[in-house]
Amino acid sequence: VRVDVHFAPAVVTAADMHGRVVVVIDVLRASTTMAVALHNGARNIIPCESSDEVVVRAKSFERRDVLLAGERRMVAIPGFDLGNSPREMTPAVVGGKTILLTTTNGTGALLATQGAREVVVASYVNFSAVLSMLRAATRGDADIAIICAGKDRTFALEDATCAGHFVRGIKRRRDSVVLGDGAQAALLLDRRYAQDLGSLFNDAEHARALANAGFGDDLQVCAAVDSCPVIPIYADRQVVRLGSERER
Amino acid sequence: VRVDVHFAPAVVTAADMHGRVVVVIDVLRASTTMAVALHNGARNIIPCESSDEVVVRAKSFERRDVLLAGERRMVAIPGFDLGNSPREMTPAVVGGKTILLTTTNGTGALLATQGAREVVVASYVNFSAVLSMLRAATRGDADIAIICAGKDRTFALEDATCAGHFVRGIKRRRDSVVLGDGAQAALLLDRRYAQDLGSLFNDAEHARALANAGFGDDLQVCAAVDSCPVIPIYADRQVVRLGSERER
Repeated sequence: VRVDVHFAPAVVTAADMHGRVVVVIDVLRASTTMAVALHNGARNIIPCESSDEVVVRAKSFERRDVLLAGERRMVAIPGFDLGNSPREMTPAVVGGKTILLTTTNGTGALLATQGAREVVVASYVNFSAVLSMLRAATRGDADIAIICAGKDRTFALEDATCAGHFVRGIKRRRDSVVLGDGAQAALLLDRRYAQDLGSLFNDAEHARALANAGFGDDLQVCAAVDSCPVIPIYADRQVVRLGSERER
Repeated sequence: VRVDVHFAPAVVTAADMHGRVVVVIDVLRASTTMAVALHNGARNIIPCESSDEVVVRAKSFERRDVLLAGERRMVAIPGFDLGNSPREMTPAVVGGKTILLTTTNGTGALLATQGAREVVVASYVNFSAVLSMLRAATRGDADIAIICAGKDRTFALEDATCAGHFVRGIKRRRDSVVLGDGAQAALLLDRRYAQDLGSLFNDAEHARALANAGFGDDLQVCAAVDSCPVIPIYADRQVVRLGSERER
């Protein structure tokens, strides 16, 4: 079994994903927001490339069944129901709804996973749930590719560090795991920050930018390990909770 | 002063380099090979995108003045004078010569540096020499961008770790340095491996591949910190030693 970590979707090719279980990580905030929404009863999430696509797709739903959500430069898109803050995804708001979501980095990473055997959306809030699924996959000899959404096409410290947490978890029960260079590096980041996510969010530029933009409380939510034990699976262009009915 | 580390040329944009002093690192082996060649008396090195370009450019020189050099999949290109091994760059072979060089990763990274204020080619063998130049640049308030050549467009552990060694060196004398996420991560890699490059080359996939391909002795040369105290500057499409006449 082989585990690779890619630090930006831009460097990932179809060959990197072919036949693998792919994990997409955007800790701040898309992955976290999706996990919180599904945990709080959202029916499904449809990642969209643009706010235009959100608006177009919304027309195929009853207005009361959908929520238009997304951000650009961290702030909610004007006219949308929601931004990209996990704190907005309360049971009262998202219960039973389809969320059409576009974000700067995370949704693009999901849309780049074609050819994967299975795609799961991961963050700290659903760490153990996703890890259990990955361990099952490696017992079936599936290779794993972890894709960090990053920021603006490049490396983001918090995504790489969270990827390292998964690498450590996968490796713990299996000595025979082969780690690519990215996975080796991610492990070292996890060793530094796993016990101190506050310090991770001090060092990570996007975390500081969020705090400066008034989203400091979001960081607490994003650092709450295992607070939302869901396994969000991306298939057929939507993200649903594993075990839920995939109906639309 | 700001220091950013980019883990793959593919994610670097012109804006990332504009006005900066740019450091290009390909520890295994192009950066090392260039430093060794210049240290041993090569007149200059001309990075080429392809073996075809090497052949075409060679025609504008007297045959005795040039060496055709390069590799694909680690092995010397058939018909060329040299591969990409630093051990081939002896004074007797390279003295006074122009080297036309094409490699899988390193030369492409150099060709992607347009817009930079200055470009320097760095590795462990010329660490302190290049660091002295970077410190001078930061005293002049220049921002630094370190570009890791990586392997096949993606992250390479040895380049990222060497980048971290430079970040640590730049930071040592200046508290006011702002580190991007990539620079933070590279620092942690350097902390792990700086005193143990043997272990770095055990963990790095490309180092293992070189050893398996019979280039294990090259790893020793690439790990010989400060063995070639030259500052290779890339300008006008050629790499020359800082302080040498830039004549052709």
